[in-house]
Amino acid sequence: MTPKKIRLDQLAKLVDGQLTGEGSLEIHRLESIEAAQEGDITFLVKAKAVEMLEKTQATAVIVPLDITASTRPIIRVKNPYLASAIIHNYLLEEPFTPQGVHASVVTGSNCTLPENITIEPNSVLGDNVQIGERVFIGSGVYIGDNVTIGDDSVIKANVTVEYETTIGNRVIIHPGTVIGSDGYGYAVDDKGHHIKRPQVGTVRIDDDVEIGANCCVDRATFGLTWIKSGTKIDNLVQIAHNSIIGENCLMVSQSALSGSSVLGRNVVLGGQAATKGHVSLGDGVIVAGRGGVTRDLPAGGVFGGFPAIPIKQWTKAATTFNKMPEIRSELRKLRQEISELHKKLAQDDEH
Amino acid sequence: MTPKKIRLDQLAKLVDGQLTGEGSLEIHRLESIEAAQEGDITFLVKAKAVEMLEKTQATAVIVPLDITASTRPIIRVKNPYLASAIIHNYLLEEPFTPQGVHASVVTGSNCTLPENITIEPNSVLGDNVQIGERVFIGSGVYIGDNVTIGDDSVIKANVTVEYETTIGNRVIIHPGTVIGSDGYGYAVDDKGHHIKRPQVGTVRIDDDVEIGANCCVDRATFGLTWIKSGTKIDNLVQIAHNSIIGENCLMVSQSALSGSSVLGRNVVLGGQAATKGHVSLGDGVIVAGRGGVTRDLPAGGVFGGFPAIPIKQWTKAATTFNKMPEIRSELRKLRQEISELHKKLAQDDEH
Amino acid sequence: MTPKKIRLDQLAKLVDGQLTGEGSLEIHRLESIEAAQEGDITFLVKAKAVEMLEKTQATAVIVPLDITASTRPIIRVKNPYLASAIIHNYLLEEPFTPQGVHASVVTGSNCTLPENITIEPNSVLGDNVQIGERVFIGSGVYIGDNVTIGDDSVIKANVTVEYETTIGNRVIIHPGTVIGSDGYGYAVDDKGHHIKRPQVGTVRIDDDVEIGANCCVDRATFGLTWIKSGTKIDNLVQIAHNSIIGENCLMVSQSALSGSSVLGRNVVLGGQAATKGHVSLGDGVIVAGRGGVTRDLPAGGVFGGFPAIPIKQWTKAATTFNKMPEIRSELRKLRQEISELHKKLAQDDEH
Repeated sequence: MTPKKIRLDQLAKLVDGQLTGEGSLEIHRLESIEAAQEGDITFLVKAKAVEMLEKTQATAVIVPLDITASTRPIIRVKNPYLASAIIHNYLLEEPFTPQGVHASVVTGSNCTLPENITIEPNSVLGDNVQIGERVFIGSGVYIGDNVTIGDDSVIKANVTVEYETTIGNRVIIHPGTVIGSDGYGYAVDDKGHHIKRPQVGTVRIDDDVEIGANCCVDRATFGLTWIKSGTKIDNLVQIAHNSIIGENCLMVSQSALSGSSVLGRNVVLGGQAATKGHVSLGDGVIVAGRGGVTRDLPAGGVFGGFPAIPIKQWTKAATTFNKMPEIRSELRKLRQEISELHKKLAQDDEH
Repeated sequence: MTPKKIRLDQLAKLVDGQLTGEGSLEIHRLESIEAAQEGDITFLVKAKAVEMLEKTQATAVIVPLDITASTRPIIRVKNPYLASAIIHNYLLEEPFTPQGVHASVVTGSNCTLPENITIEPNSVLGDNVQIGERVFIGSGVYIGDNVTIGDDSVIKANVTVEYETTIGNRVIIHPGTVIGSDGYGYAVDDKGHHIKRPQVGTVRIDDDVEIGANCCVDRATFGLTWIKSGTKIDNLVQIAHNSIIGENCLMVSQSALSGSSVLGRNVVLGGQAATKGHVSLGDGVIVAGRGGVTRDLPAGGVFGGFPAIPIKQWTKAATTFNKMPEIRSELRKLRQEISELHKKLAQDDEH
Repeated sequence: MTPKKIRLDQLAKLVDGQLTGEGSLEIHRLESIEAAQEGDITFLVKAKAVEMLEKTQATAVIVPLDITASTRPIIRVKNPYLASAIIHNYLLEEPFTPQGVHASVVTGSNCTLPENITIEPNSVLGDNVQIGERVFIGSGVYIGDNVTIGDDSVIKANVTVEYETTIGNRVIIHPGTVIGSDGYGYAVDDKGHHIKRPQVGTVRIDDDVEIGANCCVDRATFGLTWIKSGTKIDNLVQIAHNSIIGENCLMVSQSALSGSSVLGRNVVLGGQAATKGHVSLGDGVIVAGRGGVTRDLPAGGVFGGFPAIPIKQWTKAATTFNKMPEIRSELRKLRQEISELHKKLAQDDEH
């Protein structure tokens, strides 16, 4: 990567920020506020950490609006976390350099492989695979028959994409992930044997989805397992057959959707959170880490615990949890005192 | 796949069903009740969804016994879910088409590779590997020394099977799964260093086992990690060293067995459920999702929670969980009222 | 492997043990006490299982100090579990046999590949990869640009190591694990779209670390994700970006560190345990299985539950958990009795 040099006023313009300082200064890198050096831009998320503004070696700093002045150039924006991500992507952006299909790659019949792609060594493609423009496929990848991959997508090393999966544009799939493996479905016979239900559906992954490492997205029994555009999935996440995930959802590491779960738009599942099968989560629902969803959840709510309840309720209850032994002994004491009161009253009556 | 055409009366016979309608109708596919078209058979699991019987476009429907008539051909059976799985498998069944060993496959010395198998590109086999008839091995698979794989087994892409593992007949292993990796065992020395215990045992997987994607089945420290016949395992499941899993068990996604766990026959572990090491679960035990088993569980019981308790008890307790803050404040009130009663009684006594 | 034959007195010396019996006896294998045969040594961890000493067929037994005599040769040591691990490793130890780089391996430019290494078929190395002496790299491995791997390390089949990762000496990484994949970081824009934060940091893994199968260790956003020497990690573990793990930690299967977690030395995370981001666990902290850490924990403590609390408190509370419905009904009864007492007192007053 040849480092770019971008003028500070250009970066300010990119994020609609207010620049204070010399706009002609050249920036080539974005770094953390601790590690930034001359020539770097960095960012400060919270105004209260303002002392870092003087300590950093960065040439310029992206800051929240409540910071109005500094000894060094600043770009004032509403959301420095977002602005710094945009600038960072911009600084790192470079044209796709196609390296072609490595000689060791095995491809089936009737594949569409544009010239401006990269397929690294020892990957294997089945028949009728359609690859879009500027696609990168890492080494050791397996792509099954009739898979379609859109433009600008990135499939990292050792990923497995089973037959008939459809992958959109600008999708990123990290190493070791398995897409389109059989859903987990069996019927039990009289002898307790599990008869496999054929899983004849497929998987559809829409534009701008990112899926972490060593995840599993199962193909549908019938129809589709569907991850809609803009959804971002962390590592070791399980997505069972026939799940439908709305636009811009987040699923944090080790979370799981059971079969036929439905997530609305912008739903968040925290780490290790999970759903029971056939539940539906409304738009914007947030499930805290470790939450276990056992029933439909209304749009916009924040939930936690297992079974998941409104997070405020859960937090209160969880705080009380470790008081339970005390509650029991307190109850025992009260019971005794009441007995004594009864006794006392009975005695009083006798007198 | 050339679609089969099977007469309806043949399908009815296959599942011991009672056919009402024209037995000579030809069926070529099984589909979901919503998506089924002419020429398809579908199924209705519950009689109460009977309105679907009229809406579906399917040529015939497998129904429960309590449905006795329809305007379209029906096959009446005790268990439509099971019957439809059997028919679906039958319709999809086709003879194994061996494609031989791809030129890029690397094999060690002294391997047994029958002619009627498929080994896809870039897989690697060690020495003394014994492969059965009609076995399929996907691309990028690694099979270590002295591994045995029985007839009709399927090892999907990017699976790793470490040395000396024994795999039975009709076993299916989905992509990314690792069999026979070292168990997790260390001894601590005086300085707090962890000294690795060599893991010199092996793994044995019996007939008709299916293992999902990105699972881990560790080899034993000594002796065997053993998965008995008919057990079906979902994705991302952990099976630690020296676990013994009985016949026809189910382990749902992200569940885990700690070292030396023993499951009886037909045990079910729900999603994310786990066992402590060295526990034994009797035949037919069901552990609900997220259950954490900390002690031996008797045959036939249903358990949930962590530590796992009988599920009815757990459900009741979990429902009460979010009332805990109220319980505490109620206790406080009672305590105060009792104090007042005491005071009152004391006053009464004085008078 | 040619079995070694080592004299019993040599083994006793190796572990500073007191030998009772014929020192010239030759031992070639360590086995479990049940499976041991003549020529084997075995071990007995607890003195109370002393009856096994007579039943075993082993030639010699490593025993705790409180066992003072036996009809067969014994080596008395303070910690038989540790001593047996040391002896087992010694008996299995053999010189590294380099097999060179297989012809199918694809290497980038400017790699350092000593002669005494093994790289198995179909692995792929990027540019500027530095491999140490006596390194073993299994088949189907991908090693990205600028990765460094120290001496005597073992990278098993189908592992992915992304660019710029640094791996120390004697590190073992089991199959399917992914090192250096992007951390999970996004900024949200006004439309609810998630803008990827570039993950420009790296991963550093120090000497004697072992990482299980199908784990994920994410690269840092900026700076380092760092696993310090002697730490041992089980299967399916998630280590998020910028986590720092101290020396000699243990992370049991399916446990997870959220972003920027910091573990001190000799910290233990039980199976499925997890941390919230940005928490710090002091030296020697033990988190029980399924524990969920939501705040900093002081050195030396043992914690459990979610949110994690001192384990003794948690155990008490968890035991009381299933009594909650009874507590509620007890409360209801008390409330009624108090009402009756009030009524009675009121009546008494009237009289």
